Amino acid sequence: MVIGADAGGMTAASQARRRRPDDLDIIAFDKGGYSSYSACGIPYFIGGAVKEMDDLIARTPAGFAEQNIEVRLRHEVTAVDLEARTVEVRDLSDGTSSTESFDHLMVATGAEPLRPPLPGIDLPGVFGVQTLDHGMDVLEFLEKKEPRRACVVGGGYIGVELAEAMLSRGLEVTLLETAPQPMATLDPDMGEWISRSMRETGITVYTDEPAESFEGDAQGLRAVVTSEQTIEADIVILGLGGKPNVAMAAEAGLPIGESGAVEVDRQMQTSFPGVWAAGDCAEKFHLVSRQPVAIPLGTHANKEGRTAGINIGGGYATFPGVIGTSVTKVCDLEVARTGLNEQETQAAGLEYLTVTVDSTTRAGYFPGAEPIKTKMIVEKKSGRLLGGQIIGREGAAKRIDVIATAIWNEMGVDKMLNMDLSYAPPFAPLWDPVLITARKAWQRVEESSAIPG
Amino acid sequence: MVIGADAGGMTAASQARRRRPDDLDIIAFDKGGYSSYSACGIPYFIGGAVKEMDDLIARTPAGFAEQNIEVRLRHEVTAVDLEARTVEVRDLSDGTSSTESFDHLMVATGAEPLRPPLPGIDLPGVFGVQTLDHGMDVLEFLEKKEPRRACVVGGGYIGVELAEAMLSRGLEVTLLETAPQPMATLDPDMGEWISRSMRETGITVYTDEPAESFEGDAQGLRAVVTSEQTIEADIVILGLGGKPNVAMAAEAGLPIGESGAVEVDRQMQTSFPGVWAAGDCAEKFHLVSRQPVAIPLGTHANKEGRTAGINIGGGYATFPGVIGTSVTKVCDLEVARTGLNEQETQAAGLEYLTVTVDSTTRAGYFPGAEPIKTKMIVEKKSGRLLGGQIIGREGAAKRIDVIATAIWNEMGVDKMLNMDLSYAPPFAPLWDPVLITARKAWQRVEESSAIPG
Repeated sequence: MVIGADAGGMTAASQARRRRPDDLDIIAFDKGGYSSYSACGIPYFIGGAVKEMDDLIARTPAGFAEQNIEVRLRHEVTAVDLEARTVEVRDLSDGTSSTESFDHLMVATGAEPLRPPLPGIDLPGVFGVQTLDHGMDVLEFLEKKEPRRACVVGGGYIGVELAEAMLSRGLEVTLLETAPQPMATLDPDMGEWISRSMRETGITVYTDEPAESFEGDAQGLRAVVTSEQTIEADIVILGLGGKPNVAMAAEAGLPIGESGAVEVDRQMQTSFPGVWAAGDCAEKFHLVSRQPVAIPLGTHANKEGRTAGINIGGGYATFPGVIGTSVTKVCDLEVARTGLNEQETQAAGLEYLTVTVDSTTRAGYFPGAEPIKTKMIVEKKSGRLLGGQIIGREGAAKRIDVIATAIWNEMGVDKMLNMDLSYAPPFAPLWDPVLITARKAWQRVEESSAIPG
Repeated sequence: MVIGADAGGMTAASQARRRRPDDLDIIAFDKGGYSSYSACGIPYFIGGAVKEMDDLIARTPAGFAEQNIEVRLRHEVTAVDLEARTVEVRDLSDGTSSTESFDHLMVATGAEPLRPPLPGIDLPGVFGVQTLDHGMDVLEFLEKKEPRRACVVGGGYIGVELAEAMLSRGLEVTLLETAPQPMATLDPDMGEWISRSMRETGITVYTDEPAESFEGDAQGLRAVVTSEQTIEADIVILGLGGKPNVAMAAEAGLPIGESGAVEVDRQMQTSFPGVWAAGDCAEKFHLVSRQPVAIPLGTHANKEGRTAGINIGGGYATFPGVIGTSVTKVCDLEVARTGLNEQETQAAGLEYLTVTVDSTTRAGYFPGAEPIKTKMIVEKKSGRLLGGQIIGREGAAKRIDVIATAIWNEMGVDKMLNMDLSYAPPFAPLWDPVLITARKAWQRVEESSAIPG
């Protein structure tokens, strides 16, 4: 039995079905109206780059039925009894409830948008966007109410993506960010370019300026109030990030880790045999900080769901953990990170140094060469690569995967600088930006460890 | 003293100067007319994508002079006496010769185009293109003789790039390839797409069809003859690859390895102390096949030159070797490879299996999602990744660097499939093509090792 019919849950269901074609009933409940959709695609659907909602849906309940997997949408699991191995399910269409029993339970309840208890946050027109249902709510509001001014509160991934989506729909857009720069998952020195690019695109960006309250009434929203000013707004999008949706799991008695997500082992099993978790609600192990973390991301959900599904199906698989890789497009910029940023490195108690290199995506003389800024965070004594950040124009961001693969392999920058990466003028300078940065980082490590003569 | 004033030699000179600012005279000789240029950029200069020849020149002799490095162009080193530690240098402008002595000798004589002894290969209008002087010869011929029909003999990197360059200058272009597909450095099943794309762009491509002779007279070229036909041509470009230019080094007594290049140790030193080699003329160690190889590529030349220069300058550095990574653009395709291809895997005596996956560069529903075909070659029993090949449209090829980094770290595909690579709809499907391919490859390894029940 699966709770939550999106990436984590349904990947597990499919894997389990593949390995146990006959002897397992599989049923998935979701309180929302959609199965297996691309949550990461929602901002692009709202902005209009993706035309059809159907494009975001990888697989419908009818598709799952062909694989003999039953999906019941608008069915909310309200309680789990781990001892009795049953769940209480409410059919949201008619309010009736039933009790269903399970051998295996897959907890895949996802994440929910952070909604701090600010005055007015529950006013109509204030939206958090985590699920496709949320996205459809925003779209309906945009089409029916035709708001003219949008205020995005919080410049996380969803915040910056939705700010751009609102702009491309013709709204006036203001972004409020508590940190010195939006995309605070990158270091402030990198984020400065993001603010600049957003402003050049036409978004008003205020940094170091949290929202304090929302003004309006039942008729609608009027403004967002900060310590500095009152910003008129007809719609507010909360872009403050998400937190694991674990209320029901916690109530059932499943241990919740320090990250706020459900504790699992490397097979994605909770401490209750036969009870599994995957996706945004499940805790992940960070391979660099060696700490438990909660990182809501579809690509983790898929891999974790696959892992759990193989194990439920009688195979053996483990999910080793994550290193915090992410990427997005902000206006004309590509922005990516992996490993630890400076703040996370400090929190992990590691001594480090940083190197930032400006280069180009292609040979400098080649048409279409675009700027790329690459930063590495390196352990001071050993030269071990701890983190990387990239900002640039077209062709920049996917280079983060080379840095991620290097971190995955616990490489030192001294081992990286001679790596045989691809070179041709349309694709890179003679030294790829990643190699230049590794080379300079190693130079810094050598300098910092030199014994004074 | 440096022989050859391009990537390998001049990078060494710069590094040595940086570490020994005062106590080392550095002089570089080159028989050609240019220093430190991008050989890989020549096809794009001929084709017109790069407008100015100066753009290809990273640094002129005047630039080196500022760093107290003397560069003498059009000076050919005709002989080396390793015992006396002297070289004979001929000034090509006036034919005078002189003898110069050295403490350190940097051999960086590069590569020369393969010119098989076919009848007529020395006719005017038949060009090999390895150096910028060669490129300028071709350009002069194109401008003065205004040829209408070009025949490119050999579909290696330079061949396909120059075929496209000729086409973009308005010539009728035929490509003759001995192998079943051009870019035979990739496996034939991958290369088929390249032939198709070249034909769609307007290049006539004949495969499995070597050139046998060239017809013409002192007035010019008339045709290229194969076993099948006679192809009219006013200009021929040899795209058969290059070989290390080691005649002088061999004559001086420097050991030449089985790859045909000068033998060096990991510090880039030959068996003669103080005599170093770097770049296309120097042998490389292939980290997957564990065999010596000769691979002419500017990015290796730079890294090897840096290594030699640090050692000459009194530091310590090693160059670990290469894994055969390369990339190019062919018409509307991006083409890349790394590690071993099937033929090389067989030659290395390894049992292997292959997996090829068709995917997209972005989420399938996202605007601008382009096709990408990814192939992996995997050791059969262990699942160790041996090689990778990628063909696709915009955004495809640079993913080869992830595969290269994985091979560099001797990863098995089982360790790759959960790697934390970046995901967002504008950059990748939920599972990056590299991860899908690794996942399927591991599935194949598991299936092939299953014990029959």
